[in-house]
Amino acid sequence: MTSADPDRGAPGAPSAAGSGEFGLLAPMRGGVAATGDVAVLQAMLDAEAALTRVLAAVGRAPREAADAVTAAARAELFDPAGLAERARSGGNPVIPLVDDLRATVGPYAEHVHAGATSQDIMDTALMLVAYRALGPVLDDLDRVVAGLGTLAEAHRDTLMAARTLTQQAVPTTFGLKAAGWRKLAIDARDRLRAARAALPAQLGGPAGTLDRFTTPGTVSRDGDGGAEALEVVARFAAELGLAAPVLPWHVLRTPVADLAGALAFTAGALGKTAADVLVLSRTEIGEVSEGVGGGSSSMPHKHNPVRATMIAAAARQVPAHAAVLYASLAAEDERPPGAWHAEWQPLREALRLVAGAARDAAELVAGLRVHPGRMRAALTVAGPPGAAAALVKRALEEK
Amino acid sequence: MTSADPDRGAPGAPSAAGSGEFGLLAPMRGGVAATGDVAVLQAMLDAEAALTRVLAAVGRAPREAADAVTAAARAELFDPAGLAERARSGGNPVIPLVDDLRATVGPYAEHVHAGATSQDIMDTALMLVAYRALGPVLDDLDRVVAGLGTLAEAHRDTLMAARTLTQQAVPTTFGLKAAGWRKLAIDARDRLRAARAALPAQLGGPAGTLDRFTTPGTVSRDGDGGAEALEVVARFAAELGLAAPVLPWHVLRTPVADLAGALAFTAGALGKTAADVLVLSRTEIGEVSEGVGGGSSSMPHKHNPVRATMIAAAARQVPAHAAVLYASLAAEDERPPGAWHAEWQPLREALRLVAGAARDAAELVAGLRVHPGRMRAALTVAGPPGAAAALVKRALEEK
Amino acid sequence: MTSADPDRGAPGAPSAAGSGEFGLLAPMRGGVAATGDVAVLQAMLDAEAALTRVLAAVGRAPREAADAVTAAARAELFDPAGLAERARSGGNPVIPLVDDLRATVGPYAEHVHAGATSQDIMDTALMLVAYRALGPVLDDLDRVVAGLGTLAEAHRDTLMAARTLTQQAVPTTFGLKAAGWRKLAIDARDRLRAARAALPAQLGGPAGTLDRFTTPGTVSRDGDGGAEALEVVARFAAELGLAAPVLPWHVLRTPVADLAGALAFTAGALGKTAADVLVLSRTEIGEVSEGVGGGSSSMPHKHNPVRATMIAAAARQVPAHAAVLYASLAAEDERPPGAWHAEWQPLREALRLVAGAARDAAELVAGLRVHPGRMRAALTVAGPPGAAAALVKRALEEK
Amino acid sequence: MTSADPDRGAPGAPSAAGSGEFGLLAPMRGGVAATGDVAVLQAMLDAEAALTRVLAAVGRAPREAADAVTAAARAELFDPAGLAERARSGGNPVIPLVDDLRATVGPYAEHVHAGATSQDIMDTALMLVAYRALGPVLDDLDRVVAGLGTLAEAHRDTLMAARTLTQQAVPTTFGLKAAGWRKLAIDARDRLRAARAALPAQLGGPAGTLDRFTTPGTVSRDGDGGAEALEVVARFAAELGLAAPVLPWHVLRTPVADLAGALAFTAGALGKTAADVLVLSRTEIGEVSEGVGGGSSSMPHKHNPVRATMIAAAARQVPAHAAVLYASLAAEDERPPGAWHAEWQPLREALRLVAGAARDAAELVAGLRVHPGRMRAALTVAGPPGAAAALVKRALEEK
Repeated sequence: MTSADPDRGAPGAPSAAGSGEFGLLAPMRGGVAATGDVAVLQAMLDAEAALTRVLAAVGRAPREAADAVTAAARAELFDPAGLAERARSGGNPVIPLVDDLRATVGPYAEHVHAGATSQDIMDTALMLVAYRALGPVLDDLDRVVAGLGTLAEAHRDTLMAARTLTQQAVPTTFGLKAAGWRKLAIDARDRLRAARAALPAQLGGPAGTLDRFTTPGTVSRDGDGGAEALEVVARFAAELGLAAPVLPWHVLRTPVADLAGALAFTAGALGKTAADVLVLSRTEIGEVSEGVGGGSSSMPHKHNPVRATMIAAAARQVPAHAAVLYASLAAEDERPPGAWHAEWQPLREALRLVAGAARDAAELVAGLRVHPGRMRAALTVAGPPGAAAALVKRALEEK
Repeated sequence: MTSADPDRGAPGAPSAAGSGEFGLLAPMRGGVAATGDVAVLQAMLDAEAALTRVLAAVGRAPREAADAVTAAARAELFDPAGLAERARSGGNPVIPLVDDLRATVGPYAEHVHAGATSQDIMDTALMLVAYRALGPVLDDLDRVVAGLGTLAEAHRDTLMAARTLTQQAVPTTFGLKAAGWRKLAIDARDRLRAARAALPAQLGGPAGTLDRFTTPGTVSRDGDGGAEALEVVARFAAELGLAAPVLPWHVLRTPVADLAGALAFTAGALGKTAADVLVLSRTEIGEVSEGVGGGSSSMPHKHNPVRATMIAAAARQVPAHAAVLYASLAAEDERPPGAWHAEWQPLREALRLVAGAARDAAELVAGLRVHPGRMRAALTVAGPPGAAAALVKRALEEK
Repeated sequence: MTSADPDRGAPGAPSAAGSGEFGLLAPMRGGVAATGDVAVLQAMLDAEAALTRVLAAVGRAPREAADAVTAAARAELFDPAGLAERARSGGNPVIPLVDDLRATVGPYAEHVHAGATSQDIMDTALMLVAYRALGPVLDDLDRVVAGLGTLAEAHRDTLMAARTLTQQAVPTTFGLKAAGWRKLAIDARDRLRAARAALPAQLGGPAGTLDRFTTPGTVSRDGDGGAEALEVVARFAAELGLAAPVLPWHVLRTPVADLAGALAFTAGALGKTAADVLVLSRTEIGEVSEGVGGGSSSMPHKHNPVRATMIAAAARQVPAHAAVLYASLAAEDERPPGAWHAEWQPLREALRLVAGAARDAAELVAGLRVHPGRMRAALTVAGPPGAAAALVKRALEEK
Repeated sequence: MTSADPDRGAPGAPSAAGSGEFGLLAPMRGGVAATGDVAVLQAMLDAEAALTRVLAAVGRAPREAADAVTAAARAELFDPAGLAERARSGGNPVIPLVDDLRATVGPYAEHVHAGATSQDIMDTALMLVAYRALGPVLDDLDRVVAGLGTLAEAHRDTLMAARTLTQQAVPTTFGLKAAGWRKLAIDARDRLRAARAALPAQLGGPAGTLDRFTTPGTVSRDGDGGAEALEVVARFAAELGLAAPVLPWHVLRTPVADLAGALAFTAGALGKTAADVLVLSRTEIGEVSEGVGGGSSSMPHKHNPVRATMIAAAARQVPAHAAVLYASLAAEDERPPGAWHAEWQPLREALRLVAGAARDAAELVAGLRVHPGRMRAALTVAGPPGAAAALVKRALEEK
């Protein structure tokens, strides 16, 4: 029996451990496959392939190049771990990826990444990843809204204590509480939908001037001309199903900031339901319980509100990520040294936490058990619930 | 000559100092009068007076009560310092204010705050303050957008180095840079306008059920009825020029979160312009300079970019306030012990920092001096600026 | 009865409102006088006067200048509102203050601020303010520690439910809970004490080289010499009761970051006690109650845990301020345009929130009523509290 | 050539993508293997094995159980992906891990996790991971300190412009700048070392009372006794090379908060060096350059300051993680539903970002090229650098 040296960590030192992440520390995450490194890699390849196809379509590349790049643009043909390692030297993974993609397509190498800059591919890829990851999130929010509508309707008359500053106030109804949760879920869905629909492709070239897509002399001093370059951008966006931006947005980070806001909103909106479920699930209150409670490694009798706990944990983290993303708006130059790079992980992590929270909220709402008897019995203050039923009715009219 | 004891602070110990704040530490703030304690107090009184007027209009209070409360609802008749002190015992300033207002109107005391809870008044007042404070901010943003439009147009052809990761990349134009700044300012204005237009009044009563405005028995189990209470809310909102909410939003903090997002966005959007001005103003670059530079207490030769510095300082703070506000979405019960109270100062501070940044940006843009000669001379890389002029033209079409 | 136009705000428009702040929105703040603008102004004057006294002591200024500046350095002789307004042009209030102070001392004007830069005075003043404000905070923490020691001792055997993930787990004792709260308060006190004791004076001159205190030619290339300048700094610090720094720290913000950490720690540490009191005060649990509960503007029967609510509200805000302060460490140049300016308000606000939390915690602990009967009655799980009493005993040995 | 449907993502849809992470989005991270899921898993197993060994040592388990658990506690024998999936139901990965470990050791199953709760293992594992990950970070900081010492010494007389608010101020020396960077690195090292040395093991059992290690009746009401349980804790900590805590700290999160502060400090301290390198590397300034500059996917002529960019990106993220961790101090009950769970990822991510920043800073400093000629040529203001050389000398005395 030897003591474990914390430095060496024997026995079982992690020195041989891989760098793999499996989500061991993040049961509150969702959308992991849709946002994982392989998905990001695929999205970068999708962007590169779309670009070459567009160049072919406008006569700037041979059709064969487009076919070759499209055929080669499959994540499984590339080595993400190696790319990650090589990303260190230039500070982003697009630089080595372009090298590898060019090597793959041989004679068409010059038509890979032609006219683009790393940030075009990275930003476009992250928008694609966000777009793809948010589809299931919106589906989950639909489920949340529907489930809460059912609960609100079913419990329109279920009297319970309103609680303010931890003390029982006057009566309300569980229906009104559920209608409020639903309203927040609708607000979240609206904000995420709007942010998602506006996600733009990025294509500006090294300085955001589209110089590599512009034949010199074709743009007048007054800004006439340039149709050629603008068409490349529009086609690129359409090819990827993303919005076409008014300007290259390398340093105009509206899309990222809007995502940040919508994600922080959603985490908080779902966090409200979770906060209430956590209170109402307390042993001494017991007015609701999760359909499937969580166990404990030491106390088999426990029925923990695990879904609400996971949502609460997510809601505590997303505002911090949003703050980093909002702070990145104030970025100097045509590409800032740091503000841009600081977006990547917080954006992905916020997406994952919200994806997990939406999934967990859908499960929570679907399984929630409401105990009207306990609600009634607990009431220490009498009185009618005012216009609660009318409020519920009106709130449910919003779809 | 005695040494200054840091504890006692003699000579000139602050022990006798008042608690006054004059903005000594916040030259980057604006909108101070519109958001100050007297303005908040007035807004709370406006809310109380509007409520009594509405109650009179629907026959729940005598007309004389409405007149009396309206006449009494003037901030200068109340003692904000005393209210602040007394606010400690209940945790908010509305409780002592209602006492004082009732004392003022004597026989009509019962018609003051009738049916409302503290949070109704506090939330409504903060929405009023935000609404009022944002008017001048939007005006300043109009000036920023106009000024940047002029700059973009004037410098459509002004060649300068694009800079990426601190290094000169390929050429761009100052016009494109200004058009990008303008685009962000437009985006900010859009977001602030939308958030402002949606700011709702708050009226729910103790538990958010409108119970004090509902005649018992008039609302059916299915939610029919309740028109009486809903009308009080609608009239209350109209009386104050605010939006009418679908549900009481004591714990559905969409309006606060949306404000948070719009404010963080605006600070960051203006912060982008500031970040660029700071770089371009560097002694070694000197491609722009502020119209009125700031002096120094020790170096008279300096011409500091002070407006940009102030905006940059604001942009560093607002995301943190927004994070606190987003985190307050996840609030338990019908009124949470802490999450609500934690909103007040961050919301006001964010309003002030954005008001200051918008004012400073308007001044900065109005006075900005652009030095095309230095821009040209500094260029270390040759080439045409691509479609920059065309991009500027298109971007300026957005109003 | 006219409708209130939200833009104009009539009746009772805030247009005439002053910019005064009385704490109406911040019942959770403390230390307001010690940190207010008058206190800051006094601290800046203390720094200026100390500097002239030191210059006199080392023979760089006449003794009369020191006397004159010391006599003039009284906040009540200056106009903080005017200084705040004039602070906008240079971006900090020291520049106009030096002008006014020089005007006051007439013939000795040249000995005011001699060799210093604005930041020397501003930083030193903020350190003085922090030093002075933290004295009472540490006293309050002493009271918290003592009060919790008494509670822990008195309730060493008071059985109650431990609660994990909102569910009753196995029994613990209230004594162990109180001992845990006490441990955190001790940890907070240790961190604040250490940070306070290390608060340094700032004196570096325009570029942090002490050039104005160094006779040219007296410092060798190898760094020998310079004693003259170093002595000025040491005396300046001693004069103010602050620590002497190894280097000018204009852009080496260790003291500010350490304060940030200690303040965030303290807010959170006290926030733990508040979080528990909020749970245990719930109507359905009722195992503790605040000595003086807060009332309600609409529900006279309520006994709200207001002190805990205020502490919880503070604990939600301080980490965000700390994040801004930590972010300011990464500051470019010898004085950054923004990172420094962004520190002032967050540092003061964090001081105030912690001062309020410490005061409220002292009141909370002093008045806390514990209800062992309810604790016992509520227990749904049986069993002995393990080594709880032994843990309490050991924990109380730490003073 | 088909258009890529963003929902399906064809061609190359990520639907089949694994959840693997390779660091593609995080070239600024370090310490990935030491903090990865396999390392966390190993640390959890180390904790479980240490516990059984301690139980054997004090006679609470057979020696064979200790041997069996120790032999089985190798990460490669477990399925991290499966554990992650199963972690969702209870909200943490320890619950399924204990099941698997028990299954592995067959007859000794009852001696696995005996007396512990999930949080004991999770917290201990994270402390082990932090301890192990910080070893190399401290080594890197040693290299940074040494390298900066050499630079400061070598450039004690290298005159350059001090810059304040972006404008050249008066002269300073590069030596003084480097000595300042070094001072911050020393401060960071001190704070990380202290935090690391204090990292405690966690062992409290379900409610933090050590009930499963206490023979009923052996602890008196006055807290005498309990030596048995306290010894288990002390031995457990010693076995793992961690500190022994005064109290179980399930909800007394001093160690996590202290780590948060030290990590945010370190990121910011290194961020200062990076911020300066980014300014001094600008094309128009060119006073320093990185030894190995980064390339560009579109501009082969560029020599980007990539190491500084990576550090700057890390410094923008860590304060946000620290804010989440500080906010988790205010946690209710004996185990909070959310605050604890919200710590895991931010703590690990902060460790990784700091590990990356320290590694990148070591590389940056080792390779930094200083250009005294450009420094001198750029100076627009004359004058001696005051006591700079003396300050450098004194600063270098600190080791």
